[in-house]
Amino acid sequence: MGGIITLTTDFGLKDHYCGAMKGAMLSVNPDAVLVDISHSIMAGDIMEGALVLRGACGYFPCGTVHVGVVDPGVGGRRRGVIVETKNFVFVGPDNGLLSLAAKADGIKRVIEIREERFCRNIISSTFHGRDIFGPVAAHLCLGVGPEEFGPEIQDLLMLDIPEPECVSGGIAGEVIYIDSYGNIITNIEAAVIESHLGTTEVELTLRGRSIKGLYRFYGEIPLEEAGALAGSSGLVEVALREANCAKALKAKTGDKVRGVRS
Amino acid sequence: MGGIITLTTDFGLKDHYCGAMKGAMLSVNPDAVLVDISHSIMAGDIMEGALVLRGACGYFPCGTVHVGVVDPGVGGRRRGVIVETKNFVFVGPDNGLLSLAAKADGIKRVIEIREERFCRNIISSTFHGRDIFGPVAAHLCLGVGPEEFGPEIQDLLMLDIPEPECVSGGIAGEVIYIDSYGNIITNIEAAVIESHLGTTEVELTLRGRSIKGLYRFYGEIPLEEAGALAGSSGLVEVALREANCAKALKAKTGDKVRGVRS
Amino acid sequence: MGGIITLTTDFGLKDHYCGAMKGAMLSVNPDAVLVDISHSIMAGDIMEGALVLRGACGYFPCGTVHVGVVDPGVGGRRRGVIVETKNFVFVGPDNGLLSLAAKADGIKRVIEIREERFCRNIISSTFHGRDIFGPVAAHLCLGVGPEEFGPEIQDLLMLDIPEPECVSGGIAGEVIYIDSYGNIITNIEAAVIESHLGTTEVELTLRGRSIKGLYRFYGEIPLEEAGALAGSSGLVEVALREANCAKALKAKTGDKVRGVRS
Repeated sequence: MGGIITLTTDFGLKDHYCGAMKGAMLSVNPDAVLVDISHSIMAGDIMEGALVLRGACGYFPCGTVHVGVVDPGVGGRRRGVIVETKNFVFVGPDNGLLSLAAKADGIKRVIEIREERFCRNIISSTFHGRDIFGPVAAHLCLGVGPEEFGPEIQDLLMLDIPEPECVSGGIAGEVIYIDSYGNIITNIEAAVIESHLGTTEVELTLRGRSIKGLYRFYGEIPLEEAGALAGSSGLVEVALREANCAKALKAKTGDKVRGVRS
Repeated sequence: MGGIITLTTDFGLKDHYCGAMKGAMLSVNPDAVLVDISHSIMAGDIMEGALVLRGACGYFPCGTVHVGVVDPGVGGRRRGVIVETKNFVFVGPDNGLLSLAAKADGIKRVIEIREERFCRNIISSTFHGRDIFGPVAAHLCLGVGPEEFGPEIQDLLMLDIPEPECVSGGIAGEVIYIDSYGNIITNIEAAVIESHLGTTEVELTLRGRSIKGLYRFYGEIPLEEAGALAGSSGLVEVALREANCAKALKAKTGDKVRGVRS
Repeated sequence: MGGIITLTTDFGLKDHYCGAMKGAMLSVNPDAVLVDISHSIMAGDIMEGALVLRGACGYFPCGTVHVGVVDPGVGGRRRGVIVETKNFVFVGPDNGLLSLAAKADGIKRVIEIREERFCRNIISSTFHGRDIFGPVAAHLCLGVGPEEFGPEIQDLLMLDIPEPECVSGGIAGEVIYIDSYGNIITNIEAAVIESHLGTTEVELTLRGRSIKGLYRFYGEIPLEEAGALAGSSGLVEVALREANCAKALKAKTGDKVRGVRS
């Protein structure tokens, strides 16, 4: 029985970790279709992993199993969980990694993984992606119900993603992600700008610079000038046409952004 | 219905873009077999993407759908196209990205993508890989005919790849690509060297250095000496055994190369 | 007929090489399931490729075909081989790349690849991954027996991996691999430490530093202090919690490690 399983990890692409985990999954379910979302999350960066997983998961077919492994607490007391949502099933450590994606899709039930019969025979204390989460995902994909893996729990660890504030005449937010083009992605939804300011003609302030927008697409931004637009996830981002904007502006995650009508 | 779809993009491997596009494709056709050619094309480098796609596409089975997304003009006036060739179908922006590969295989028909019913419900102005090209490729793979997607057009944008010149007693060409081993790939076909110079014993000049060749394989090049040979695509390349030749010679795309009988 | 084929190469992820090889494989067997172990082995680093392949291969289902291509001697006199082991079939150059993995699984038979009818029509002298090893793997996956590809041979080239020495009151080994988290992996099995020293409470010396262990998992290592533990392959490794230990200690492959009871 086929079925799609996606993988989002910080394993990198050089070592054997990714292959070992995929092998363990295919040993349980040779017909599972494995799709990489990312293995290049910064080592141990749970927030980055959570944002990437949230950005990609919603485009997959209903029933897709999404496994996430960014797991600096592996082997310690953090639990392993299965999170059933409206359209998907998520599997991974209970450290917040799955929380943004699961919340966005609508959480229905959270199960703590306790049943070792769905894991590898020997469970290491340093690699639960290979020994627990991968095999559990492969069993879910075979049709085993989430309730078979352990008891339901109520206290899934949720990440706090900073919310922008609508202040009088403006919006105050921050940079939450820099993508590999160097686009600077904020936590401000373009739709909120429009509803709160009554226009999409705004002026952002970031690192002391004034940035115009919202442009409709990258090619509309004047050359060599940073501009703001609605990115493909609906969030306002700041970009330079044909160049890496984050490098040019020395922007970093956490930088404050303010927007007012222009 | 299965069928192979390859992907060549500049999305990089860290962000959610690649996963989102694959999810959108699998939502249309869960049985499509997705094969990555490259997601590491330099951001916005259409020529590099076109060369990588041309280098790989011909080895796939007849009927393979090749999607390319290196698309700095996304959202603007550039069209989206389907290019039917002798053995394949190509999908992507009409900015030259598909042109080298399509020309090499023999172009039969070019269709402008106009029918939004084969796209995602909401089409962003910044991510047509996910919203248009991916879903269109997945529909093609399901058996929808290219003519269903829009009108035939005649003016596909073609990239000009520099042609080497056969001059009296020699050949003048240039560097068109540096691969990740540091091999310096020129636009001169080894077969042309042989037919024009009447020998494969040549001396190349590159960055003021004299380089001997054509060697038959990398291990035949003397250690610590740059040598020329016919690469796996039939083009003359300059390589250092067990080292990165492009770094050693500070070679770049566009550097001039001259070859004479040695 | 499906069947899993894994790939371990030094092709990198940008160029067309990986795509061309996969295309050539799917042209022979469109139903083969291709799984990447790594394409980011350091160019020409046979030992690194052999360690990564050994680390991952054992987790795949019985019958998996593992192809390895780290092949600086391509085109010269080195042979191409098929190595049948207890659970798997390995394909690649006879330069040691397959030897660690094959030995770990138990070698049954080694075949030299001679039959060109299972290769591409034109065999280049620079890219046997695409022209020989990939197509051969795809034919093996279709059910062609290893003996069809050529004669049995007895002298597979084996890599020497340094063995740790048990000395009076201690163990002397060395660093064999640095992973992408910066974990420093030694050739000393944790089980050997326990049996030889009669305890897992040890003190390692590496680059003049004293390192405590064995901790049970990464989170148990005191912050900002390098600690030793049993990694997921059973080998002792030295790690820094939430940081790159190899960078901090300037550790390199080949560095000596000594362990005594603490």
